[in-house]
Amino acid sequence: MAHRPIITLTTDFGLNDHFVGAMKGVILDIVPEAAIVDISHAVQAFDVLDGAIAISQAYSYFPNGTVHLVVVDPGVGTTRRPIIASSDAYHFVAPDNGVLSMVYAREERIHVRHVSSEHYFRQPVSNTFHGRDVFAPVAGYLAKQVDSQKFGEEIEDFVRFAAPRPKPAGENRMRAVVLKVDRFGNLITNVTPQDIPALFSDKPGAFKIVAGSKEITDMVAAYAEGAQGQVFGILGSMGYLEIAANRASAAQITGANKGSEVSIVLGDAAAAGKSA
Amino acid sequence: MAHRPIITLTTDFGLNDHFVGAMKGVILDIVPEAAIVDISHAVQAFDVLDGAIAISQAYSYFPNGTVHLVVVDPGVGTTRRPIIASSDAYHFVAPDNGVLSMVYAREERIHVRHVSSEHYFRQPVSNTFHGRDVFAPVAGYLAKQVDSQKFGEEIEDFVRFAAPRPKPAGENRMRAVVLKVDRFGNLITNVTPQDIPALFSDKPGAFKIVAGSKEITDMVAAYAEGAQGQVFGILGSMGYLEIAANRASAAQITGANKGSEVSIVLGDAAAAGKSA
Amino acid sequence: MAHRPIITLTTDFGLNDHFVGAMKGVILDIVPEAAIVDISHAVQAFDVLDGAIAISQAYSYFPNGTVHLVVVDPGVGTTRRPIIASSDAYHFVAPDNGVLSMVYAREERIHVRHVSSEHYFRQPVSNTFHGRDVFAPVAGYLAKQVDSQKFGEEIEDFVRFAAPRPKPAGENRMRAVVLKVDRFGNLITNVTPQDIPALFSDKPGAFKIVAGSKEITDMVAAYAEGAQGQVFGILGSMGYLEIAANRASAAQITGANKGSEVSIVLGDAAAAGKSA
Repeated sequence: MAHRPIITLTTDFGLNDHFVGAMKGVILDIVPEAAIVDISHAVQAFDVLDGAIAISQAYSYFPNGTVHLVVVDPGVGTTRRPIIASSDAYHFVAPDNGVLSMVYAREERIHVRHVSSEHYFRQPVSNTFHGRDVFAPVAGYLAKQVDSQKFGEEIEDFVRFAAPRPKPAGENRMRAVVLKVDRFGNLITNVTPQDIPALFSDKPGAFKIVAGSKEITDMVAAYAEGAQGQVFGILGSMGYLEIAANRASAAQITGANKGSEVSIVLGDAAAAGKSA
Repeated sequence: MAHRPIITLTTDFGLNDHFVGAMKGVILDIVPEAAIVDISHAVQAFDVLDGAIAISQAYSYFPNGTVHLVVVDPGVGTTRRPIIASSDAYHFVAPDNGVLSMVYAREERIHVRHVSSEHYFRQPVSNTFHGRDVFAPVAGYLAKQVDSQKFGEEIEDFVRFAAPRPKPAGENRMRAVVLKVDRFGNLITNVTPQDIPALFSDKPGAFKIVAGSKEITDMVAAYAEGAQGQVFGILGSMGYLEIAANRASAAQITGANKGSEVSIVLGDAAAAGKSA
Repeated sequence: MAHRPIITLTTDFGLNDHFVGAMKGVILDIVPEAAIVDISHAVQAFDVLDGAIAISQAYSYFPNGTVHLVVVDPGVGTTRRPIIASSDAYHFVAPDNGVLSMVYAREERIHVRHVSSEHYFRQPVSNTFHGRDVFAPVAGYLAKQVDSQKFGEEIEDFVRFAAPRPKPAGENRMRAVVLKVDRFGNLITNVTPQDIPALFSDKPGAFKIVAGSKEITDMVAAYAEGAQGQVFGILGSMGYLEIAANRASAAQITGANKGSEVSIVLGDAAAAGKSA
């Protein structure tokens, strides 16, 4: 690594407390030349899937050699394992609770180690803040070029879950879900172009998307193409179908929220009008 | 530039999503030695004037050579142009929607270029996140000392708007507006000492400021000079008249908010009591 | 200092305005190679004790030589003094209003200076934003290795307050208080293991903790040991008794909040049932 080490942070610690600051202090005490970059500290508290989405959407934009630290850790202080997952380009440091599942799904080759060498931990190790006492120092030493093999044995039985996928619900019907609502009120669904290619083609046939109280029958290419007050579908920057509005919050307009069901109907059934 | 490059970020992306983290990854992949500094990511969503205020209040404190990246971009994916505006000391990278208007108003010499050299963009360019795919990489290459001339042709017809100014409303009366409410509940108006010198003099004559439900008849020099519960006027650090209170929120006390009208009456009319 | 200078920021400025960005600009203009690290900008507005807690919980994790800048400054523009407090390992820059009290309590040797050399200030000095005009530049010059003696004379009469301590309230009874509520809804009390050793022993006898609407009769070692919906006591990472719940907000469940009284009863009185 010719350049200075880079460490990113993704946690559910929020920014109102001293937690993130303390972690950064621990890192800089080990590797003072590091650049520490926040990805998000607003992962929903205790929500491992929400953390999995956040890190999966940001990690690949960073330079090779970046160490990604992910702490969403409701099991802190129990026997859940701290791990290092290493892809060709990156190291990830996290609790072994599935928070890296969407990274595993994107990376063909990944090696996962159970971090057991406690002399890389900050002593004494508390039972309630492993972000500071375990994960931050391990990330610091990795960024300092300590070989990942020194932290513990490789494991195969690491925890991973399948991200929720859209499900067929009868002919030409799919049931999807809102994965998250972003800052602008856009509803990010779990539907990708691979799931329903027709919806994302230049000339989609008849379709209908139902989200909350609204039926959506238009796909647009840019937010600003929507008319005022209109709710539409769009292929968002996260790679998913978004339900959105132009300079307005689709979440507010539709009443749909994180976890809400979204149904997509294609073809004649959509053209024939409302039907559930 | 002897020192490491500095890039600031001002956006309406908030800090709850991965957006800002992804932009920082893109920047660091181009210029790993950069210092990236957040000015604000809490610009009101889609609010170009609010973004214009934020960047205009912070940019001039940074070292010469700083690249200021400003992304408040409701027209993302449409034909609005990405631009580089260069003053003697700084580069600004932004969409051409007026978000730099208050910078233009402060900088005597500024050159604006339409960024059209797409090989400086991150490919593929999405339709919905030019912060990541267009503006961040352009800022990165500028910080890496790529000559601004390489990005595109100079233009003269860039978008600029006039910031709202106080308006005369009869003899010795002005109508002003609350530009923003800060973290402490201070109401930042658009009134400068140039607009109403008498108000800011050591011995202002009779005056009355009406904001929300309150009449203000005192100007103070420091927040702590106000009595408990008192609402007063003060020349704030942004260079504007602020309506404020000592250890309390003037917004809460007066009921006024962003966009609220503020009227200022000078002289006999003020002394004569309430009158609208 | 072999490594690049590190400056931390702890303020009540929030992240919605340009205030923090402007301070960082001022610092980088003086010492462009500095790493600037946010500890928290969410100290409750005007709340000196809340600021004292934040800095006291994070400063000691940073490398020797770090400059800690703490701006919770309701008296800005008045005669309260700007100070530099220097321990063996750190410099602290703050207003002299007690915000460093919990640092003083932890550091055996500390020297405090009244910063009076105005040529280290940014000119002109406003009356309303000394974070930008006084404290940030002083921190910048300290980080640039200007000798602390050059900023002003040592003083002994600096302001310090005693942090609120639990009080005896009859035999085997203590009255404590909630110092803060963290992001997860944990209630951080002011009770340390030194205050009530029995409560934190491996085999505590009968005890009862009353917080808001709940009686707590269990101490656990890790958050995840709590049953669903259960409220329990735990020794938190801040070194205090916390009232917490497993993957849920104890603040919400108990109705207790910052400043709420917490009573602890030990021995027979606790076993005998509810009694106030």
